[in-house]
Amino acid sequence: MTRQTELNPPAFPKLATHIEGFDLIALGGLPEGRSTLLSGTSGSSKTVFAAQFLAAGIMRCGESGVFITFEEDPEDIRHNMIGFGWDIATWENEGRWAFVDASPQPGDPHITAGGYDLGALLARIEHGVKKVGARRVVLDSLGGVFAQLDDDATIRRELFRISKALRKLGVTSVITAERVEEHGPISRYGVEEFVSDNVVVLRNMLQEEVRRRTVEILKFRGANHQKGEWPFTIVPGHGVVVIPLSALELKQKSSDAR
Amino acid sequence: MTRQTELNPPAFPKLATHIEGFDLIALGGLPEGRSTLLSGTSGSSKTVFAAQFLAAGIMRCGESGVFITFEEDPEDIRHNMIGFGWDIATWENEGRWAFVDASPQPGDPHITAGGYDLGALLARIEHGVKKVGARRVVLDSLGGVFAQLDDDATIRRELFRISKALRKLGVTSVITAERVEEHGPISRYGVEEFVSDNVVVLRNMLQEEVRRRTVEILKFRGANHQKGEWPFTIVPGHGVVVIPLSALELKQKSSDAR
Amino acid sequence: MTRQTELNPPAFPKLATHIEGFDLIALGGLPEGRSTLLSGTSGSSKTVFAAQFLAAGIMRCGESGVFITFEEDPEDIRHNMIGFGWDIATWENEGRWAFVDASPQPGDPHITAGGYDLGALLARIEHGVKKVGARRVVLDSLGGVFAQLDDDATIRRELFRISKALRKLGVTSVITAERVEEHGPISRYGVEEFVSDNVVVLRNMLQEEVRRRTVEILKFRGANHQKGEWPFTIVPGHGVVVIPLSALELKQKSSDAR
Amino acid sequence: MTRQTELNPPAFPKLATHIEGFDLIALGGLPEGRSTLLSGTSGSSKTVFAAQFLAAGIMRCGESGVFITFEEDPEDIRHNMIGFGWDIATWENEGRWAFVDASPQPGDPHITAGGYDLGALLARIEHGVKKVGARRVVLDSLGGVFAQLDDDATIRRELFRISKALRKLGVTSVITAERVEEHGPISRYGVEEFVSDNVVVLRNMLQEEVRRRTVEILKFRGANHQKGEWPFTIVPGHGVVVIPLSALELKQKSSDAR
Amino acid sequence: MTRQTELNPPAFPKLATHIEGFDLIALGGLPEGRSTLLSGTSGSSKTVFAAQFLAAGIMRCGESGVFITFEEDPEDIRHNMIGFGWDIATWENEGRWAFVDASPQPGDPHITAGGYDLGALLARIEHGVKKVGARRVVLDSLGGVFAQLDDDATIRRELFRISKALRKLGVTSVITAERVEEHGPISRYGVEEFVSDNVVVLRNMLQEEVRRRTVEILKFRGANHQKGEWPFTIVPGHGVVVIPLSALELKQKSSDAR
Amino acid sequence: MTRQTELNPPAFPKLATHIEGFDLIALGGLPEGRSTLLSGTSGSSKTVFAAQFLAAGIMRCGESGVFITFEEDPEDIRHNMIGFGWDIATWENEGRWAFVDASPQPGDPHITAGGYDLGALLARIEHGVKKVGARRVVLDSLGGVFAQLDDDATIRRELFRISKALRKLGVTSVITAERVEEHGPISRYGVEEFVSDNVVVLRNMLQEEVRRRTVEILKFRGANHQKGEWPFTIVPGHGVVVIPLSALELKQKSSDAR
Ligand SMILES: Nc1ncnc2c1ncn2[C@@H]1O[C@H](COP(=O)(O)OP(=O)(O)OP(=O)(O)O)[C@@H](O)[C@H]1O
Ligand SMILES: Nc1ncnc2c1ncn2[C@@H]1O[C@H](COP(=O)(O)OP(=O)(O)OP(=O)(O)O)[C@@H](O)[C@H]1O
Ligand SMILES: Nc1ncnc2c1ncn2[C@@H]1O[C@H](COP(=O)(O)OP(=O)(O)OP(=O)(O)O)[C@@H](O)[C@H]1O
Ligand SMILES: Nc1ncnc2c1ncn2[C@@H]1O[C@H](COP(=O)(O)OP(=O)(O)OP(=O)(O)O)[C@@H](O)[C@H]1O
Ligand SMILES: Nc1ncnc2c1ncn2[C@@H]1O[C@H](COP(=O)(O)OP(=O)(O)OP(=O)(O)O)[C@@H](O)[C@H]1O
Ligand SMILES: Nc1ncnc2c1ncn2[C@@H]1O[C@H](COP(=O)(O)OP(=O)(O)OP(=O)(O)O)[C@@H](O)[C@H]1O
Ligand SMILES: [Mg+2]
Ligand SMILES: [Mg+2]
Ligand SMILES: [Mg+2]
Ligand SMILES: [Mg+2]
Ligand SMILES: [Mg+2]
Ligand SMILES: [Mg+2]
Repeated sequence: MTRQTELNPPAFPKLATHIEGFDLIALGGLPEGRSTLLSGTSGSSKTVFAAQFLAAGIMRCGESGVFITFEEDPEDIRHNMIGFGWDIATWENEGRWAFVDASPQPGDPHITAGGYDLGALLARIEHGVKKVGARRVVLDSLGGVFAQLDDDATIRRELFRISKALRKLGVTSVITAERVEEHGPISRYGVEEFVSDNVVVLRNMLQEEVRRRTVEILKFRGANHQKGEWPFTIVPGHGVVVIPLSALELKQKSSDAR
Repeated sequence: MTRQTELNPPAFPKLATHIEGFDLIALGGLPEGRSTLLSGTSGSSKTVFAAQFLAAGIMRCGESGVFITFEEDPEDIRHNMIGFGWDIATWENEGRWAFVDASPQPGDPHITAGGYDLGALLARIEHGVKKVGARRVVLDSLGGVFAQLDDDATIRRELFRISKALRKLGVTSVITAERVEEHGPISRYGVEEFVSDNVVVLRNMLQEEVRRRTVEILKFRGANHQKGEWPFTIVPGHGVVVIPLSALELKQKSSDAR
Repeated sequence: MTRQTELNPPAFPKLATHIEGFDLIALGGLPEGRSTLLSGTSGSSKTVFAAQFLAAGIMRCGESGVFITFEEDPEDIRHNMIGFGWDIATWENEGRWAFVDASPQPGDPHITAGGYDLGALLARIEHGVKKVGARRVVLDSLGGVFAQLDDDATIRRELFRISKALRKLGVTSVITAERVEEHGPISRYGVEEFVSDNVVVLRNMLQEEVRRRTVEILKFRGANHQKGEWPFTIVPGHGVVVIPLSALELKQKSSDAR
Repeated sequence: MTRQTELNPPAFPKLATHIEGFDLIALGGLPEGRSTLLSGTSGSSKTVFAAQFLAAGIMRCGESGVFITFEEDPEDIRHNMIGFGWDIATWENEGRWAFVDASPQPGDPHITAGGYDLGALLARIEHGVKKVGARRVVLDSLGGVFAQLDDDATIRRELFRISKALRKLGVTSVITAERVEEHGPISRYGVEEFVSDNVVVLRNMLQEEVRRRTVEILKFRGANHQKGEWPFTIVPGHGVVVIPLSALELKQKSSDAR
Repeated sequence: MTRQTELNPPAFPKLATHIEGFDLIALGGLPEGRSTLLSGTSGSSKTVFAAQFLAAGIMRCGESGVFITFEEDPEDIRHNMIGFGWDIATWENEGRWAFVDASPQPGDPHITAGGYDLGALLARIEHGVKKVGARRVVLDSLGGVFAQLDDDATIRRELFRISKALRKLGVTSVITAERVEEHGPISRYGVEEFVSDNVVVLRNMLQEEVRRRTVEILKFRGANHQKGEWPFTIVPGHGVVVIPLSALELKQKSSDAR
Repeated sequence: MTRQTELNPPAFPKLATHIEGFDLIALGGLPEGRSTLLSGTSGSSKTVFAAQFLAAGIMRCGESGVFITFEEDPEDIRHNMIGFGWDIATWENEGRWAFVDASPQPGDPHITAGGYDLGALLARIEHGVKKVGARRVVLDSLGGVFAQLDDDATIRRELFRISKALRKLGVTSVITAERVEEHGPISRYGVEEFVSDNVVVLRNMLQEEVRRRTVEILKFRGANHQKGEWPFTIVPGHGVVVIPLSALELKQKSSDAR
């Protein structure tokens, strides 16, 4: 097959994540101004990847970020990320990182009765984005919110509304979603991926008693990307590192990939 | 087996899609004047294929098209297709492409309460078709609509009504439908394929960490077609390209296929 | 094992279908005066096979037929079968083929509300049978009707009543039923095969990206038949052709089959 | 392992079925005075086996039988069995075979509304048993009855009551039950086998497009039997023939079987 | 790995079952004063094993037993066990075996309406235990009782209460439970094993048309036991015989088992 | 790949469990001040592991513990652990081990009606923790509690609240959870692992009739750990012993693990 690359129109704008190795397989980064669903089982590194998306923005290109957390409270996130050398507390003080704490609060009616007010949430996100002038936003994770919704149709509609609202804010965002098993449907309810513009899957495969982590870009609406699964590792003091094949190797690989 | 091809009655009328390579395996194109269900997982290229069906009609044979979108809004579709060199905005201005935006609107009661009015939708489609004198129509995707319906029987009936209505408009149409997994049932609810005259399946198989895309014509009521899965690729600047075996190879292959 | 074929009592009466090759594996044809359930996935050729059952009756032995259609309208069936050289419209004019159109009609309350009146249907079938003096009847397909019924017990009972009523009319009939996957249960609801006297399964297997069609007689109550799956093909201008092993080969094969 | 066969207490009483080959693997026949559940998919020969149980009783040892039929009507059973040389009508006239027709009747409220009266059924069975002095009884099949019952607990209780009642009549009986697939649970509802004293499974396995029939005694409460699956065939003019290994071979086989 | 067996504290008290071979793999017998869940498919020998637990107690060490039966009536159990040389009727007369007949009785409201009174049952069990001074108790099987309960939580609670009550009586007991398939969950409802102190699984595996019986001790809370599956056979005149590897072989095997 | 270990920030604080071999794979122990979900099938050693977590704390480093038991009563736990040489009763007298008995009590309305009061439970836990000055807490097991809750969302919320409350008490805790099968979802309801900061899985695999136990750290939020499954054994007189590869071997292994 011959590819007439000279005809290529201007590339779809991407935001470099600066997550090591990832931008190579993403052919530049995450689609700019849009949301990406980040789906994975428990422990597959969703939170690390999402936090790194913000941390790298701050450290590598001075872009602020907002982290909306739905179950872990901000203090935990701060604490859990210290091992990667990300000093979130300092960044917060510098006005480069803001938390929106949407986790259930003790004494909060939420915690006993369930109940969830999307409008209020979106207002708080907007407030956070404006406060730090964020270009990057993370929502981690919608699992607890979805659990309270009635059915797949509602989950679908709410996720759709959230994506729309984030789009309007002009930010590039990462929304984490839960999977129960490494095989089978991409997401817990089987609808999340369909209403998302972009989908990245983190896997933590168990083969003969050994674990192997991979990342895959399943879908980028309107943009090209490397296909298939790429191994990655979580390096203490660094975070996610997608296995650094040289650019050359990648190009070669891409020329016969689809 | 000997085929007495001299007895063949006049061929079933087909509309050449001008999607590269596809018309070869479709033995001419999609059955004219009818709907084709295009089923695939998230990211399997349903939207690209469907948009290309319209774009190729405009570019290759001057046939106008209507694109009914149920979740992505028209601006996104326009944007996402630029990478393939399809200048939808211009075509809209030229009266060759029309959008029917059936996506939930902010401030729209739809977005909060669900609810779906088929009659109104069909009227808007008819309006669009007349406006541009469309021969080609795309509905992408019914997933969000179906999610709001009560049960399989209702989904079945509504899809049936939509097909009937499109038939009456005299257009050749593509209706996209969702699958959750590459294996198993052809469509999410297991009924969509049965009420459709024609079914095409797009697959995005993961084998040993590598993805492979294929297209299969599962059913053309009343018409012949190549059988089995055919590899395709999405080429930046071009769109879907079904792997271009020479016509000769195809004929040879077809002579022992069923 | 020795078979004392000399003890065989008078054979169960069968109606030769004149579908090429099929009567060989059916050891004569379909059990006469009874219904046969024809189960298969979407696109497995149920409608082609069923229509050919009527067409062959008309063309090969002058037996008229009635085709009850539940979703596709008669005009479509006529159109779809032209590629096989079956001129249904002419046969209708000659009083040899009659349609009973049980498909939902626009403006019909059926189409919006569901609802299904078996008594009225049976009366229409009887009328059709009498009008053309039919010996063969096809019902294609009950899928849409079953979808509206409440539960498996109702589906079971209604299918039972339909079979009974057809039996009383003295006709030999084919009733098509839906399967969602090639593997697993014979029919969608797992009850259809049990209330049917005879069951034939059409398969359209996908193996390593290639499709292969087979037909199997799963059950003939009270009658012998070849066992297992037999390949077939759909030949333009002809219809279903079960692979024509010579009678000799078949006999040989049958002598060690069960 | 050494078996001290000299210690064996008096054998559990069995009723020779006189189904060819079966009594060898049953080590004498079916447990006398009890019911045996005969489970199998559609077309697995349940009805042939069950009818042969009665026919062989009449032909080989002068024992009368009662056949309770729940879906097929008696006329069909009579007709379907002629191919095996069983002249049921004559036996009925001679007072050696009686039908209890529990199939839904046209004009019968059963047929429209469901509903099922176990007490009345048992009275009819008792009447039939007394009329012909039956030692053998067949119920074929409870599938339609179970479909109308509410839940597994009810099915369990009703099957239990039927077995009890048959026990009280002093007859040896065969009760057929449905399975949807050859693999997986023994019976449709997963409870039928547990309330039955004895369970026999008929299989009709599809392996590489070829069918293979086997019979297995899964459970005889209180009695020994051969274990595992045994091939059988349906011979026109004869009926079920379990593959006739010589008695010697069987003994040999049994000595190392469990 | 070195095991410092000299440090072993006093062994957990066990009650020798005297079921041949079983006490070797149980490292002494069943945990004394507790209940053991005995789970298996239909025909896996649950009733034989459970009855043998009582019979061996009477025959080998003069311990009386109570057998609570929930579906089979006592007369059947007596009858079914004669083939193993167990003269239950005599033992009953001698006051060494007592039945508690909890099976549904004809004329009993139970039999028509369901309904189940745990308090009354426990009183009857206590009465039986006192009457014969039982050290061993069998409940066979709770399947029918569980079927009437509403949900898994209720089943869990009731099984828990029964175990508690048996514990208070000071008896060592065996409670049989149903499994639908040899693979998959240990018990029908997936909760029974969790509320039981001890779990033994009886399997009756079908491999290439041959059956193979095994017994496995899945869990002994607080006590050691051999791990994995051990083959057994049912010997006429004897009952269950776990394959008699010599004590030496077992010790050897155990030294590298976990 | 080169790891710049010189950049590593201060390690995440861990509490050495002193369970033999486990702290090596946990790279120090369990994350301090947090809860760890311990998931496994019935008999997978959850209770032994959890009790050992407390026992080792007392024996090896003088840390007191509280054991909240939800089904087994304290007397059973005491009894069951004697075989490992853990004299819990003495520890209780010395004020180093406290039980919170949350098991259903006879005469307790809980036992008949279900019902569960989280607030009261947390108060009792707090009381226990203060009484003995506990650093370690075990909850074994929540299975019975979860069974009474309405749905997955409630289970999720309650587990979340419990974790929060334990966090506030400053203790390091182990919460056991049930799995029904070794393969498939990590926990019974598929949500427990997502709301837990840390997840350890105990497996008891059946391969060719032999059992093999392994332990895996699936997730430590914010902390490094060895990946994959590690074999362990339960040694009488000792308890759980994770296979003692030398520290050297582990380091070597870890250097190429992810
Ligand atoms: N400082 C660290 N050093 C090394 N590895 C770490 C570190 N912190 C976390 N990890 C690794 O990352 C994993 C946690 O990943 P993370 O919390 O992102 O998972 P997740 O997909 O968000 O899970 P969940 O859905 O349960 O929230 C840990 O199990 C651990 O293996
Ligand atoms: N400009 C482009 N260049 C190359 N590849 C592209 C381009 N645009 C899209 N793609 C490819 O097409 C895929 C998207 O396909 P598409 O949106 O048609 O999927 P879909 O089946 O409609 O998914 P969904 O059901 O989620 O809507 C992308 O994941 C990407 O791989
Ligand atoms: N004229 C023709 N020439 C060749 N092949 C044809 C022709 N008409 C139909 N076919 C083949 O028959 C298939 C359609 O079969 P048919 O409509 O009988 O399927 P079906 O089992 O009835 O499906 P459904 O359940 O969706 O109604 C087509 O997909 C095509 O492969
Ligand atoms: N006269 C005959 N000669 C040869 N084979 C026969 C004859 N009659 C029946 N058969 C075989 O027996 C099969 C029918 O078996 P039968 O009706 O006993 O099945 P079944 O298990 O009762 O099915 P169902 O559950 O659908 O009632 C037929 O499919 C055919 O293969
Ligand atoms: N006297 C006997 N001699 C030899 N084998 C026997 C004898 N009695 C029973 N068996 C064997 O034991 C099996 C019955 O076992 P049992 O009744 O204990 O099963 P079960 O697990 O209780 O089944 P269910 O759950 O259906 O009650 C029989 O199928 C038979 O194979
Ligand atoms: N003293 C002992 N010596 C040796 N092994 C023992 C001893 N006590 C228990 N075991 C082993 O530990 C197993 C019980 O483990 P445990 O009770 O911890 O399982 P669990 O996962 O808590 O199960 P459940 O979910 O049913 O409570 C026993 O089956 C036995 O194999
Ligand atoms: Mg997370
Ligand atoms: Mg799309
Ligand atoms: Mg059809
Ligand atoms: Mg039958
Ligand atoms: Mg039993
Ligand atoms: Mg436990």
